[in-house]
Amino acid sequence: MTFQNLDKTKAFNELKTLPRPSIKELLTPERIASSWVDAGASMRYNWAAMPVDDTHLKALQALGDEAGLIDKYRALLDGAVMNTGERRQVLHHLARGQAGAPVVVDGEDKGAFYLGERAKIKAFSTAVRSGAITSSAGKRFTTVVQIGIGGSDLGPRALYLALKGWAAHEGILTLDAHFISNVDPDDGAQILGDIDLSETLFVLVSKSGTTLETLTNQQFVSEAMREAGLDPSRHIVAVTSKSSPLAGSSDVLDAFFIDDYIGGRYSSTSAVGGVILSLAFGYECFASLLDGAHQADIQALNPSIRENAALLDALIGIYLRNVLALPSTAILPYSQALSRFSAHLQQLDMESNGKSVNRDGERITYPTGPVIFGEPGTNGQHSFYQLLHQGTDIVPLQFIGFLHSQHQRDVTVEGSTSQEKLNANLVAQIVAFARGKEDENANKRFAGERPSSLLFADRLTPAVLGALLAHYENKVMFQGFAWNINSFDQEGVQLGKVLASSVLNGSKGDATLKAWASIFSL
Amino acid sequence: MTFQNLDKTKAFNELKTLPRPSIKELLTPERIASSWVDAGASMRYNWAAMPVDDTHLKALQALGDEAGLIDKYRALLDGAVMNTGERRQVLHHLARGQAGAPVVVDGEDKGAFYLGERAKIKAFSTAVRSGAITSSAGKRFTTVVQIGIGGSDLGPRALYLALKGWAAHEGILTLDAHFISNVDPDDGAQILGDIDLSETLFVLVSKSGTTLETLTNQQFVSEAMREAGLDPSRHIVAVTSKSSPLAGSSDVLDAFFIDDYIGGRYSSTSAVGGVILSLAFGYECFASLLDGAHQADIQALNPSIRENAALLDALIGIYLRNVLALPSTAILPYSQALSRFSAHLQQLDMESNGKSVNRDGERITYPTGPVIFGEPGTNGQHSFYQLLHQGTDIVPLQFIGFLHSQHQRDVTVEGSTSQEKLNANLVAQIVAFARGKEDENANKRFAGERPSSLLFADRLTPAVLGALLAHYENKVMFQGFAWNINSFDQEGVQLGKVLASSVLNGSKGDATLKAWASIFSL
Repeated sequence: MTFQNLDKTKAFNELKTLPRPSIKELLTPERIASSWVDAGASMRYNWAAMPVDDTHLKALQALGDEAGLIDKYRALLDGAVMNTGERRQVLHHLARGQAGAPVVVDGEDKGAFYLGERAKIKAFSTAVRSGAITSSAGKRFTTVVQIGIGGSDLGPRALYLALKGWAAHEGILTLDAHFISNVDPDDGAQILGDIDLSETLFVLVSKSGTTLETLTNQQFVSEAMREAGLDPSRHIVAVTSKSSPLAGSSDVLDAFFIDDYIGGRYSSTSAVGGVILSLAFGYECFASLLDGAHQADIQALNPSIRENAALLDALIGIYLRNVLALPSTAILPYSQALSRFSAHLQQLDMESNGKSVNRDGERITYPTGPVIFGEPGTNGQHSFYQLLHQGTDIVPLQFIGFLHSQHQRDVTVEGSTSQEKLNANLVAQIVAFARGKEDENANKRFAGERPSSLLFADRLTPAVLGALLAHYENKVMFQGFAWNINSFDQEGVQLGKVLASSVLNGSKGDATLKAWASIFSL
Repeated sequence: MTFQNLDKTKAFNELKTLPRPSIKELLTPERIASSWVDAGASMRYNWAAMPVDDTHLKALQALGDEAGLIDKYRALLDGAVMNTGERRQVLHHLARGQAGAPVVVDGEDKGAFYLGERAKIKAFSTAVRSGAITSSAGKRFTTVVQIGIGGSDLGPRALYLALKGWAAHEGILTLDAHFISNVDPDDGAQILGDIDLSETLFVLVSKSGTTLETLTNQQFVSEAMREAGLDPSRHIVAVTSKSSPLAGSSDVLDAFFIDDYIGGRYSSTSAVGGVILSLAFGYECFASLLDGAHQADIQALNPSIRENAALLDALIGIYLRNVLALPSTAILPYSQALSRFSAHLQQLDMESNGKSVNRDGERITYPTGPVIFGEPGTNGQHSFYQLLHQGTDIVPLQFIGFLHSQHQRDVTVEGSTSQEKLNANLVAQIVAFARGKEDENANKRFAGERPSSLLFADRLTPAVLGALLAHYENKVMFQGFAWNINSFDQEGVQLGKVLASSVLNGSKGDATLKAWASIFSL
């Protein structure tokens, strides 16, 4: 296995020489029908509206092969130390199933460890949902609140929102979930105003057991519980590492363990997402999500870009970023259930690949991770799509769509259902972005040639959601390999922490810091 | 008043010749203390961490003067037809107060018209909140649901969320507000599952009375009301134009009027935001928001960039976009109450200035509106800030901060309150982005030189929120003037509408459209 910078590969330098094809001209009905790639769990990826023809696909396949993307993925699955900065294994795939060799770290079989935590989650969530475990007021828990930030917040929150409609339609008992993340005291205060503490179970998520925001919010809600005559230790469970101060603490009802081999932004399929999702919708829902993710992980092992959606999506992304020099990407799910999914992907992608140094610690000279943003359609159509259609910059688009709605509760107006209108809009946008429109009035002219792709499935179920999540995790991983960076550390978040702590300790003679701090009376 | 493209102005060509200063070197305590500009309603803007020195400020002032930005703003206030594409006046400022000459359009005094609608909103919202107007089940209305999309959704939703904590602290009776926007039937179905229809009043917002998403959602909720034995016509009010089919309809309890001179994304301070905010928090709250916005509008008339925050923010933005060639901007409020404010600004900015044609219909050759994205701090610090600190691209940052929280309910942990921790983080980030940090390990090195600004106020009140909203509206307006584009139309949203309608009508022989449509069984 060799590691080299993207611009040193032969295939990339060949890719750069290829002429840029016209999407408008490429986009025939035959191409649309034949441009499908399997993404796992019955989800499929369509790249017909991307500016790549057969010569590009050949070059992208060659780049994937030369950069050893599948070999590196296999090595990661088999327990190689792919998080080079922190010298750690990368094991989020293992949390959902065995896709490589057994991995033993420090004498512990990690596959067995993750399965063990799943069993604990199953037993605990079942007991809470059945009413066998009650609150300190003797009441059934009806509400769960996750206290966590970053990866302990965005992913679980996005997944919870994504499954509410599915659970309602399936008639599944649902515990209301809320999330407190920000150290801003207004975040916690707002949630406390909306819930009944005597029926609320808190899930405190902090790997180290020392995350400032999270521990502060623990104190915040614990004080409120004590004021209400409740016993906080019977209303809080922890998701933390075995070595954390929270692990054996009498302040919590129970603890579920995570480890150093799954980074925050990859932790939704560990106990970080598992406890809250199993409490909210039942363990079977979470198990089904893991199964969908595992299917996508297996699919991502296929060495052919014609049969591996994550790999192809990653390599087309490299073409857009490093050859066409496009600095951002929009994620546009045509599903209100995915209202916070783009925010999660923004973290996943930008925190993983927003790096300027390769895995050997050398400065690199080509662009890496793009800016990621997005909101659900059709909403975005009435908002920032103006710039996407007629702005001076081109933004590649990733559409996500489903044949059926989740609730399957609909209305027919002017001869079509809402779901049909939703998807007619999605289809129309792909074509409008690709093809554009001539007009005598320049203000009404659309240049077209805006690249887009589509991830498509029948319905947003837990399994499909798992596959969707894993698709993006694997895409980001492949891109990191191609850029020769470490996608699994986050040194960029450290400096702010150090300086914030300095401010709280009087800025220690740093006049600039003091000058800003004085504005906020600090 | 002359209109010319940015690259034709003498001042811009001078600005381009200035050397780029080092933020790290500029950022002294003296500069921080002296870099404040008034933004109205006691809000202030600080530009100390921007890469501009006195020579840049002089050049930016010259650019503002040469481009006649204040003259154009005055002309707009006085009723000039500044929306050239649609040949309309632009009157959102007038909805909050008289800042220019009286404006009469088609024989109607527009100032009087907006005041008249405010009086109607005051009377109606007072009657609902007092219980004088009840539901068709004879119950008091406890819940309001806005049905609207784009500007009828994002702005009012962001403002509602921004004021909940303030209202709770002030002890103001609050009606729960929800928003249904997406034509995705799961959006409406989810909200209907969360509310008691017999106590719910719907606010249907559509200027034309023909917006497909909105009318479809009206039918969706009306069916549900009929099924529940309720009379929809006593549960729906309309916000629409006088000429719309909804205006005199017996399907609605009452109608509040808007007109063609306030675009959707500028409509939060018209009846579009006024009805829902007055119902939720009382008319006085809305009036206070308008007053804050009006103060910012007046402040924005000042011709000196040293005394006009919106003007200076706009011109520094031009420098970042057109001289330093930075393609995106992040909006980072350190206030959970502003959780959806960045999404509103994303629409405001990208829909207004995502244009490639000047006001005379000629193609322009310099970049216009950037990609806008953002999430509240400290959350973002644990997410996409990695790329902002160590990514290969530089993203300019707009911080927003407040001395005090809204709820004023706090907890002291490790010697500091949550609000102090929040603001210590904000301060730390500004310095970290500006100054960076050397390290032997390249992976822990921060290059710094990341530009940021700060909008600061004592507390997020209705008046401050109004000023904050108006600041960005006026910034976007000044940038549009400088780019010589029309910031007030949105032709880029039309093509998708036409094609979506074609899809719903069988794609009319368009084979490409048909091929996509068949994927969704359309």
